[in-house]
Amino acid sequence: MNLIHTFEAVQEASLQLLELTDKDINKILHAVADAAIEQTDFILSENLKDLDRMNPANPKYDRLKLTKERLQSIASDIRNVATLPSPLGRTLKENTLPNGLRIRRVSVPFGVIGIIYEARPNVSFDVFSLCLKSGNACILKGGSDADCSNRAIIHVIHQVLKHFQLNPHIVELLPATHEATAELLHANQYVDLLIPRGSSNLIQFVRQNATIPVIETGAGICHTYFDKEGDLQKGTAIINNAKTRRVSVCNALDCLIVHAKRLHDLPQLCAPLANSHVIICADAPAYAALQGNYPQELLKMATDQDFGTEFLDYKMSIKTCSSIEGALNHIQHYSSKHSECIVTENPTNAALFCRKVDAACVYVNAPTSFTDGAQFGLGAEIGISTQKLHARGPMALEEITTYKWIIEGNGQIRKP
Amino acid sequence: MNLIHTFEAVQEASLQLLELTDKDINKILHAVADAAIEQTDFILSENLKDLDRMNPANPKYDRLKLTKERLQSIASDIRNVATLPSPLGRTLKENTLPNGLRIRRVSVPFGVIGIIYEARPNVSFDVFSLCLKSGNACILKGGSDADCSNRAIIHVIHQVLKHFQLNPHIVELLPATHEATAELLHANQYVDLLIPRGSSNLIQFVRQNATIPVIETGAGICHTYFDKEGDLQKGTAIINNAKTRRVSVCNALDCLIVHAKRLHDLPQLCAPLANSHVIICADAPAYAALQGNYPQELLKMATDQDFGTEFLDYKMSIKTCSSIEGALNHIQHYSSKHSECIVTENPTNAALFCRKVDAACVYVNAPTSFTDGAQFGLGAEIGISTQKLHARGPMALEEITTYKWIIEGNGQIRKP
Repeated sequence: MNLIHTFEAVQEASLQLLELTDKDINKILHAVADAAIEQTDFILSENLKDLDRMNPANPKYDRLKLTKERLQSIASDIRNVATLPSPLGRTLKENTLPNGLRIRRVSVPFGVIGIIYEARPNVSFDVFSLCLKSGNACILKGGSDADCSNRAIIHVIHQVLKHFQLNPHIVELLPATHEATAELLHANQYVDLLIPRGSSNLIQFVRQNATIPVIETGAGICHTYFDKEGDLQKGTAIINNAKTRRVSVCNALDCLIVHAKRLHDLPQLCAPLANSHVIICADAPAYAALQGNYPQELLKMATDQDFGTEFLDYKMSIKTCSSIEGALNHIQHYSSKHSECIVTENPTNAALFCRKVDAACVYVNAPTSFTDGAQFGLGAEIGISTQKLHARGPMALEEITTYKWIIEGNGQIRKP
Repeated sequence: MNLIHTFEAVQEASLQLLELTDKDINKILHAVADAAIEQTDFILSENLKDLDRMNPANPKYDRLKLTKERLQSIASDIRNVATLPSPLGRTLKENTLPNGLRIRRVSVPFGVIGIIYEARPNVSFDVFSLCLKSGNACILKGGSDADCSNRAIIHVIHQVLKHFQLNPHIVELLPATHEATAELLHANQYVDLLIPRGSSNLIQFVRQNATIPVIETGAGICHTYFDKEGDLQKGTAIINNAKTRRVSVCNALDCLIVHAKRLHDLPQLCAPLANSHVIICADAPAYAALQGNYPQELLKMATDQDFGTEFLDYKMSIKTCSSIEGALNHIQHYSSKHSECIVTENPTNAALFCRKVDAACVYVNAPTSFTDGAQFGLGAEIGISTQKLHARGPMALEEITTYKWIIEGNGQIRKP
């Protein structure tokens, strides 16, 4: 392994983080935020090198681009992380046994967290600040498209760390190569947790190839079920918000499931979608209900591929079902277990939906667009987990800590 | 995949578990315990078929063997699981946002848990009862040595499930073949969590090959550090208990680290070990301190291989260090992050040890032999996790649940 010395250095540096207080950490975060502003010209000029290599028509171009305003917003996010309560040193459980042994479960950092991401240089600042706040060292593997930007950002962070006499290896940026990714995926001895952030291809690749523990983030195939007893006004607002607030994010609506007894309300439920030019791929009953009541150029007959698809675009499918069980079956089959919603005034149906739907976030009469760490009041977000192990849904500082058991005795021994 | 229909059937059956109350579950557990006793003759006769194929000198023979008494103890363990509080439906977090959205984090089953284990048929009952109590369906892949025993046990459980009109697919035993293991490791669509239980080779194999989330259990390379300010009497009892209570378990002491200033106390610290014929592989200073004070036939010069080894036998190594930092470095290098202990009367050293040692369980003045779900007051144990993701140390019912976020609104929408 070519990167073994890098990995060793990060692991070694992670031990130094155990000696910092939350106050120390917050001081560093503020200094990094200041540096991000002070070094705006340097960061933007390096960012320009990356932008020059990319076609502005590429949808990645906008995500890659940094501006003075974006750096200000990044700095303000870093300062916000400093205001959050420390996730470390919390006693999660406490118990004194009859023999006098005192057993405590206490939150601690993971140690070293690896992040694999694509062409979004803001992630470098973002991940560093969340990892530092939670006492973790981090190994970043960014996309090659953003390499100059990422190097500039890490350079700025390293300068701050040196100023505080901290080991700069608490954050390392790997070469933007496939070889580096391959080594990181198997660095079991050095990396405690791996979080891939980006396209579903990237996440799939990491899941298939990593031998270190992974938290999957991302892909959201989200349904909204409009029940027989759904409120029309609420449903109209919820569907429009879930689909059109931001189509490029994972919590956006992909499929509306409508109860057959409410097909006559479909035109009204979908009316605001036409303003955003949302293309609707409807099954036969829904198509019939919408024909003549929705712009014909935006209305298509659904094919099998339109179900179970994450559109990430002004596009959605509609499925008709004859019962809540039908909706549950459709969701069970096609959901990516991210965010699912029911619109109903019937509390029994709402409770059934909440119990039966297997997803990170289950909504009653509110749009899936709320799935977000900040919206949930978590203060920050490192990703949205779509797996069930360790963390589910929005992940914030608590979710990038683990715990240890501390057992204090006075010479007790265990009987046979 | 040949087993795809089995996996589908288990996933389908897991949904039925969501409809059971804790009272229902406890009734089934009691019925399974009763059946284990009533069908003792059948289970033992099938167990005999497995035993007949194995050489009684094989260390696995004893683990494979079931007896009337062992079945009674198994039944009593199952009844004990029924007495534990349900881990399901607990509100872990609750928050009402200014816009009126009510957000709750509620504990729920994983869904389907896969367990890969070796020749211990009691694990079949054990895992089934813990999975049922936590609302999970389970897929068991037992070792071929125990196949007749496992089939008999699952047959008995299936009879009980049928009596309760429950879908028997909530527990399935896979064929005891490598092909079945290979399919299980990649059943991402059907299995939510995989727990390997057994030798470190098995665990390593699963870690390297599984694409579904895994919790590693098992291997414990455990150290006890006797500090410069350690109490001699406590240390003597702790070291003897940690090494000799049961040598075949993962929490047993493998390496004693002794402060150089206390080498003169080594003969007394090790005296009780001679009664159990513990072989000591000592480094040069420790060897010199013990020579003439410990049975010569049990004393060996340590080689490099004696450090970082899980002995699982009446054997241990001794390392001398000149400071607590030396002990911490040795542990950092060789520990499997399972259980580590310091014997000291100095609270600063105890605190430093607790902060710096990266292990599931960190002990002060108590032996590592306490690492056990029942000892920790967790009521049951499905394994001891040696990873940091999701669960660390003893895992009980809570650790085989996940959570979902339930968000209840009244038509709120998210602003841009």
